[in-house]
Amino acid sequence: LNQSMNILLTEVGLRDGIQAEQRILPTADKVRLANGIIAAGVRSLEATSFVSPQAVPQLADADDVIRGIKKRDGVQVCALAPNTRGMHRAARAGVDAVLVFLSASESHNRKNLNRSVDESLRGIQDVADIAAESGIEVKGAIATAFGCPFEGDIATQRVVDIARAFAAVGVHRITLGDTTGMATPRIVRAVCSELLSALPDLRIALHFHNTRGMAMVNVAEGLSLGVTEYESSLGGTGGCPFAPGATGNICSEDLVHYLRESGHETGIDLAALSDAARELETLLGRTLPGQVMRAGPRGQLHALDSVRTASARA
Amino acid sequence: LNQSMNILLTEVGLRDGIQAEQRILPTADKVRLANGIIAAGVRSLEATSFVSPQAVPQLADADDVIRGIKKRDGVQVCALAPNTRGMHRAARAGVDAVLVFLSASESHNRKNLNRSVDESLRGIQDVADIAAESGIEVKGAIATAFGCPFEGDIATQRVVDIARAFAAVGVHRITLGDTTGMATPRIVRAVCSELLSALPDLRIALHFHNTRGMAMVNVAEGLSLGVTEYESSLGGTGGCPFAPGATGNICSEDLVHYLRESGHETGIDLAALSDAARELETLLGRTLPGQVMRAGPRGQLHALDSVRTASARA
Repeated sequence: LNQSMNILLTEVGLRDGIQAEQRILPTADKVRLANGIIAAGVRSLEATSFVSPQAVPQLADADDVIRGIKKRDGVQVCALAPNTRGMHRAARAGVDAVLVFLSASESHNRKNLNRSVDESLRGIQDVADIAAESGIEVKGAIATAFGCPFEGDIATQRVVDIARAFAAVGVHRITLGDTTGMATPRIVRAVCSELLSALPDLRIALHFHNTRGMAMVNVAEGLSLGVTEYESSLGGTGGCPFAPGATGNICSEDLVHYLRESGHETGIDLAALSDAARELETLLGRTLPGQVMRAGPRGQLHALDSVRTASARA
Repeated sequence: LNQSMNILLTEVGLRDGIQAEQRILPTADKVRLANGIIAAGVRSLEATSFVSPQAVPQLADADDVIRGIKKRDGVQVCALAPNTRGMHRAARAGVDAVLVFLSASESHNRKNLNRSVDESLRGIQDVADIAAESGIEVKGAIATAFGCPFEGDIATQRVVDIARAFAAVGVHRITLGDTTGMATPRIVRAVCSELLSALPDLRIALHFHNTRGMAMVNVAEGLSLGVTEYESSLGGTGGCPFAPGATGNICSEDLVHYLRESGHETGIDLAALSDAARELETLLGRTLPGQVMRAGPRGQLHALDSVRTASARA
């Protein structure tokens, strides 16, 4: 695809990226990172989750993180609201939007949320009602949309049905989550085509994990279908409970670099975003999967004397 | 692209992958790995380089590695022959093919080979003459074909001119090397289209490094152009002298998995190849970038009780 598109990236590193990290980051560091990410030009930030602190200790400071983020025009700060209690907390803290979610697969939904998909949909209705009263936008996410680690392939019709149920409660922007990195370009094409054909007014965002090295080819497929919204994580933070050592979300800086080199616009300053990724890497104390923060953009040239003669390497 | 293609993968892990690794692998381990790779169904192996042992100590045992590999019908074992001395060694050791190479960029060629591109071309002529006497196939490689770390973009015409010079000495199979990970889908399309249009009988193989996270999208672009030959490295071994900590060559197992899930045939047993990658990881004593060897193929499902309830993660 040669035409240039304006791409909206949602940065999810401070939520999906760090939620399972061993080292708990101090609130002040999260806030500084969030403000740095926004200063780099990110216009959509998934900053935290109003989940039970017992369930996800890393995000126990959700209220203070949201309160610490400096608001800017044209920037949407979002948080997960898993239930009405979380929704009330999110509203009080002052989010611009909440994300409500469930899994396309019944078994993953039960494992993750301890209820059936139908029960989740009813809970989402309750959250949406509270959000409407507070004038807060509700965005939806369908986890395991491209495959479930317990059930395998997910029927495309299942994803369409859930998206329709979301639309029925007023949710018209849906993230398709590749929760355990099972998406392939073929499946991305099948699901997105069917969804856009069934619900032409739906806004789709794609959220890929690089668990099997396919995150970027899946974005490429999304781009070829005209999808302009993607979710990514600073430094490629995140992981997969089924694959210790596997990489996590697609890396924000690598994605911005790829989009730029493919002629698309994100409005994001790659150098500033890479600085934030390096800072996060230092804070987490482990090497993150991000590549561009190490190698620099392809246009960053080197002096001839910067390496010794390699001697006959091809 | 929906049509299924037969893809020829050349495994380069035992050459490009390990050549700069700190830990020197014992010859017996290399031979066992090579035989395991071939047993997994790999039909083209770049096994070593007949370079000066002083320049690349890891490959000082090239002769013994080649002699140790068990020959099989339909499998081509190749080695780099940087000069006539290396070519004589390669012939004596019994390779099926040699790879001769230079850089598209004058400055990289001088840095890497300590001579001009024209001088390299004359040297290649000499090597090709010896190979012809021994009935050994000569394959060519153009390093920095998609960008040079010193000069930046490479004129497409430059690549075409070098490929034509290769053809003049009887080399009709050319690898385009993305030596420092500067390729992008746009550039891949531009270079391959021009090359195939100028030299329709040329066989092109694409050799990408994942230095900036774009190796797989570059393969996807190659596939969309109908290119059926790729080079990859077990476990994603390799690196970039300009980016400490950057990943190396595109990972063989991840590539095989992607190709399979995209409907293409490689003839390679993914499980057996992943076993070899895990063995190489153990031998090198460091975590390699490969993902599929950790996560397993996407179709490998998990038991519901294999993870604890994650509690409201999306």
